[in-house]
Amino acid sequence: MTETATQMDIKTFLNLCSGNWFSQRTNYSLGGEKTESGKADLNIATIPPEDSKITQLCQQYRIDPKQSLGGLSYSWDTSVDWGKPKQQGSSLIVFVSDGDDTTTGKLLTNVTPKAVAKASGIYVIGQDEALTLTIETEEIGVEERIWFASNNLRLRTTVIKNSTGITNTSFYSEIRKAPPKEG
Amino acid sequence: MTETATQMDIKTFLNLCSGNWFSQRTNYSLGGEKTESGKADLNIATIPPEDSKITQLCQQYRIDPKQSLGGLSYSWDTSVDWGKPKQQGSSLIVFVSDGDDTTTGKLLTNVTPKAVAKASGIYVIGQDEALTLTIETEEIGVEERIWFASNNLRLRTTVIKNSTGITNTSFYSEIRKAPPKEG
Repeated sequence: MTETATQMDIKTFLNLCSGNWFSQRTNYSLGGEKTESGKADLNIATIPPEDSKITQLCQQYRIDPKQSLGGLSYSWDTSVDWGKPKQQGSSLIVFVSDGDDTTTGKLLTNVTPKAVAKASGIYVIGQDEALTLTIETEEIGVEERIWFASNNLRLRTTVIKNSTGITNTSFYSEIRKAPPKEG
Repeated sequence: MTETATQMDIKTFLNLCSGNWFSQRTNYSLGGEKTESGKADLNIATIPPEDSKITQLCQQYRIDPKQSLGGLSYSWDTSVDWGKPKQQGSSLIVFVSDGDDTTTGKLLTNVTPKAVAKASGIYVIGQDEALTLTIETEEIGVEERIWFASNNLRLRTTVIKNSTGITNTSFYSEIRKAPPKEG
């Protein structure tokens, strides 16, 4: 459990994210001290750099698609959260190389519900093997930190700021679901 | 919100922790997918290295108290969490220098309720200015990560492992309370 000198690279990290997850979330709204929690099924797939969804998003940002390292497609479904309105959605995050530095670069995203619809930002992989995504628009800033407590337990925190300061923090505890049995 | 090359030192970090906090916690028990949440008033005070509580704890671990960098005393009270049994407690964490390296060293603690009563471990301050505390006993391992989203918003996650794997994760969102008005 100690930190080591080895450096996780972005591709290894993205491959670890791939799979089906049971995601539990707690959100704290800071002004009113309101707490909200929820559950969702979350599917994450790695998308290769040459995929048309990635090249299109790169072109929208006038970035050479050849610089793309690939991306993650997220899709979620809150049907497991009985008694709450069902929500389904999806988003794409594309990682763009920053030259020779394998620990940091640009990120492009086309949907982050409730926060930003389309935005760009930066990613950094720290020596502690956590991935930090930072997105800033004119209205808000979002900082998301993702790390693996084990290969089958993914943890995430998000901090959302607007012009008045920090408004929300969230914690996600995500358990990898066993692959479906072959029938 | 980007990472910088400046390095937070442990003393600056401990001073930032000092104060009165409104602490909101969510705990996920992984086996049964049980969620539990709570609120507490949390007081954190910095304790100077020469304090007798620190020298005593160092002596119990046969560590020269002169190597101590000081510590934090935590005391909490869940009276703000209406309708739940009231819990009060306190603990002490002592930070011990690891020679010239200001980013890592030993830690000694005398109470961590529910987890370990007395234990030692290591601390590391990362380039992202987060403090990670790692404690391992024969029964369990605890990894706690503490960072500041702002001077007045402290975030913490904990991951608890036993011999069967990871059993619990928690998230704490802690808001600094305004100092009492002089009257």
